[in-house]
Amino acid sequence: MNEVRQARKDDHLQVLRAALGQGALRTAHRMVNALHPAEIAALLESLPPAQRELVWECVDPDLEGDVLVELSDSVRASLIRGMDAEELVAAVGGMDVDDLADLVADLPEAVTQQVLRSMDQRDQERLRTVLSYPEDSAGGVMNTDTVSVRPDVTVEVVLRYLRMRGELPERTDGLFVVDRNDRYLGMVPLTRLLTESPDRLVGEILEPEAPRIDPNTPAHEVAQLFEDLDLVSAAVVGPDGRLLGRITVDDVVDVIREEADRSVLSMAGLQDAEDVFAGVLPSVRRRLPWLAVSLAAAFASGSVVHSFEGTIQAAAILAAFMPIVASMGGIAGTQTVTLIIRGLALGQIQRDNVRWLLLKEIGVGALNGLVWALVICAVTVAWLGTWRLAAVAAAAMLVNLLAATGIGVVIPLALRRMRVDPALGAGVLLTTCTDIIGFASLLGIATLVLI
Amino acid sequence: MNEVRQARKDDHLQVLRAALGQGALRTAHRMVNALHPAEIAALLESLPPAQRELVWECVDPDLEGDVLVELSDSVRASLIRGMDAEELVAAVGGMDVDDLADLVADLPEAVTQQVLRSMDQRDQERLRTVLSYPEDSAGGVMNTDTVSVRPDVTVEVVLRYLRMRGELPERTDGLFVVDRNDRYLGMVPLTRLLTESPDRLVGEILEPEAPRIDPNTPAHEVAQLFEDLDLVSAAVVGPDGRLLGRITVDDVVDVIREEADRSVLSMAGLQDAEDVFAGVLPSVRRRLPWLAVSLAAAFASGSVVHSFEGTIQAAAILAAFMPIVASMGGIAGTQTVTLIIRGLALGQIQRDNVRWLLLKEIGVGALNGLVWALVICAVTVAWLGTWRLAAVAAAAMLVNLLAATGIGVVIPLALRRMRVDPALGAGVLLTTCTDIIGFASLLGIATLVLI
Repeated sequence: MNEVRQARKDDHLQVLRAALGQGALRTAHRMVNALHPAEIAALLESLPPAQRELVWECVDPDLEGDVLVELSDSVRASLIRGMDAEELVAAVGGMDVDDLADLVADLPEAVTQQVLRSMDQRDQERLRTVLSYPEDSAGGVMNTDTVSVRPDVTVEVVLRYLRMRGELPERTDGLFVVDRNDRYLGMVPLTRLLTESPDRLVGEILEPEAPRIDPNTPAHEVAQLFEDLDLVSAAVVGPDGRLLGRITVDDVVDVIREEADRSVLSMAGLQDAEDVFAGVLPSVRRRLPWLAVSLAAAFASGSVVHSFEGTIQAAAILAAFMPIVASMGGIAGTQTVTLIIRGLALGQIQRDNVRWLLLKEIGVGALNGLVWALVICAVTVAWLGTWRLAAVAAAAMLVNLLAATGIGVVIPLALRRMRVDPALGAGVLLTTCTDIIGFASLLGIATLVLI
Repeated sequence: MNEVRQARKDDHLQVLRAALGQGALRTAHRMVNALHPAEIAALLESLPPAQRELVWECVDPDLEGDVLVELSDSVRASLIRGMDAEELVAAVGGMDVDDLADLVADLPEAVTQQVLRSMDQRDQERLRTVLSYPEDSAGGVMNTDTVSVRPDVTVEVVLRYLRMRGELPERTDGLFVVDRNDRYLGMVPLTRLLTESPDRLVGEILEPEAPRIDPNTPAHEVAQLFEDLDLVSAAVVGPDGRLLGRITVDDVVDVIREEADRSVLSMAGLQDAEDVFAGVLPSVRRRLPWLAVSLAAAFASGSVVHSFEGTIQAAAILAAFMPIVASMGGIAGTQTVTLIIRGLALGQIQRDNVRWLLLKEIGVGALNGLVWALVICAVTVAWLGTWRLAAVAAAAMLVNLLAATGIGVVIPLALRRMRVDPALGAGVLLTTCTDIIGFASLLGIATLVLI
């Protein structure tokens, strides 16, 4: 897409939005269906519910299936809920097996059955194979439209076969080589078919080292493999050595995007595939659990403060320092937590380097603590002119920053060991700890020194 | 990589780590160089500085360049600092132009000059072309190793040319078609070359609609295009219509990964390409600016509390409710901020749906506020048995949650308009606002009601 085309696309969307705003449905209809299914999906996801319905009505029935595949889970589910069985069967009938597999979970049972009946035996079997693996495993992500050849034929025979066969599946960058029992032997890249002499045997030019992915491999490991080896496609091979399907890089890109999305959202206690245009009620319901956890945590730190009521009564100014000491601990700890979660996700953190990391972060906390203790001390003297309060605040700051980085290392690792997603729980756990330690050290030291 | 190979790789790494731990350098040397450059890079990034140096010493000189390309910026820069000019020239000499372009920014000027002198005229020009575009633009990401053909030759001639030419560049999924002035006309997928009749003309089977990317397109827009259209490669075409290079999906995968990484890190005020194994001093230095901003923000909310010193002295229990009301606002606001930042990044939020979003989030805030006001009221009565304090806390909660979601929409949009990365600033700005509003409403209402 050159700049002209990009600009044209932006204009297109703007005109389309204007048409929707004015209720010019005929124009909208024409413009919507001139878009690529992925672009229609992006458009639908950027519209409030009422307009979303309107645009969805405009989509040509034979595009509906392709658009559904491109949508995020929650938007897709809401659109499917609005369609009757007949519409759904029409939309998803004739779709690729792999695309269909992505939708099945959201379809009503009756629709699935009807679609299954309309498929031939081979496609039914393929669909069952894909569905038999978890959605986020290699088997759940794979396509079954493989093209395979035998090792004992020549390049010339393969070329003739391909010309007879006609069209190849999208993103085919190589042919899979299998023996007569469908056992996977390796891959012949298309580039080699094109550059090798026609009388060579496939068996001589195949790449036996081409990766073979077990169908139960987690999707994020598959993504890592594609990234490390810069793959375009790879074979999925069952434990018996038989070729099951192939994974292509476009699926991997989706996996990477979803993974990144999930980690950002779960840090804020939101569910993945969140729809920013969901209505008020569903939004409130989805955000409730996290706020409930946070309230419990906040009451825990509140009760720590409560236990120092006498101290605060004697020196109410301490209340002004509570948020300062606590929030600095929260920020410093969050920096550490973020680095550790990332290191875990990238596989950089292993049992044998955890001790080094912990010591290093405690070092960072100690140095940070010294720096900010001096700063808060200086600012407090300048602000309020009291050395004793300044010393108390500085001591509390040192304690909290030192604790924050240490806890910041421990929490994600502990969550990981308990098989809880560190990105989900670590934030609230950490700030609860730094709040409690911050309040307890500030008010505790003040009780000893000031009163 | 089947499970066996994956397991073998994990074993391999474990044995290697053990060898490093025991100082068995000869074993380590052999094992390191059996890995893929991307795997060596991942290993280096997961080691503390001392061991990292050790492993880097083990890497074969002719692999060093490929490993450097795969490393993240900060780790790469630190390794390059430890190499002398001669080593560097040896490591990067003979690298692909595009890989070299990624490294040049980190190389000492003298090394760059020496490498440039060792290149032929054509490669020097190619390197200058790539370097003339920003690193995060299509021109900066592209490869220059394109294979192009003319439209007026037959498929058979192309096949013969390819066989004579031998090897094709990696991830070639199509040939670019250009006229005699090197003007880009379209692409012929390899799959079509293999399936079309040999006597057809290239001009008849080329895809004129294949995307042509302007070299100044931002990398994240290129990534979106690849995602939407499921591309493997695409042509980069200058404003004069001439073919400049091509972008391949593996580069796009890197862009997506880096983008996701950056947004997670910047939410915690960390710089991109952060090295979790950096030493204490560089870590403290990198985290200082964000903590300084946070301290200023914390003093702002502290001074709000300070202005209510009399109220707190009269009712010290209020100090226990300060963190509760403030943190609930912070959590609720962060949920909104996260959704809005994500919506902006995905291009879902446009001028014409902002008003809808703002109203919706205020609705969410109002309903959330009611729910949690009731909860805090009930808990407070149960905890402390005082209705008046419970009512004050509930009112403050309602105000703060209502404000939090509204502000959560406005802050990222305002930052975006000021061309500041919303992921970087929004978090601290938001919690400063919710802290101040939380404290002011709690203590303000208490001043009116309790005293």
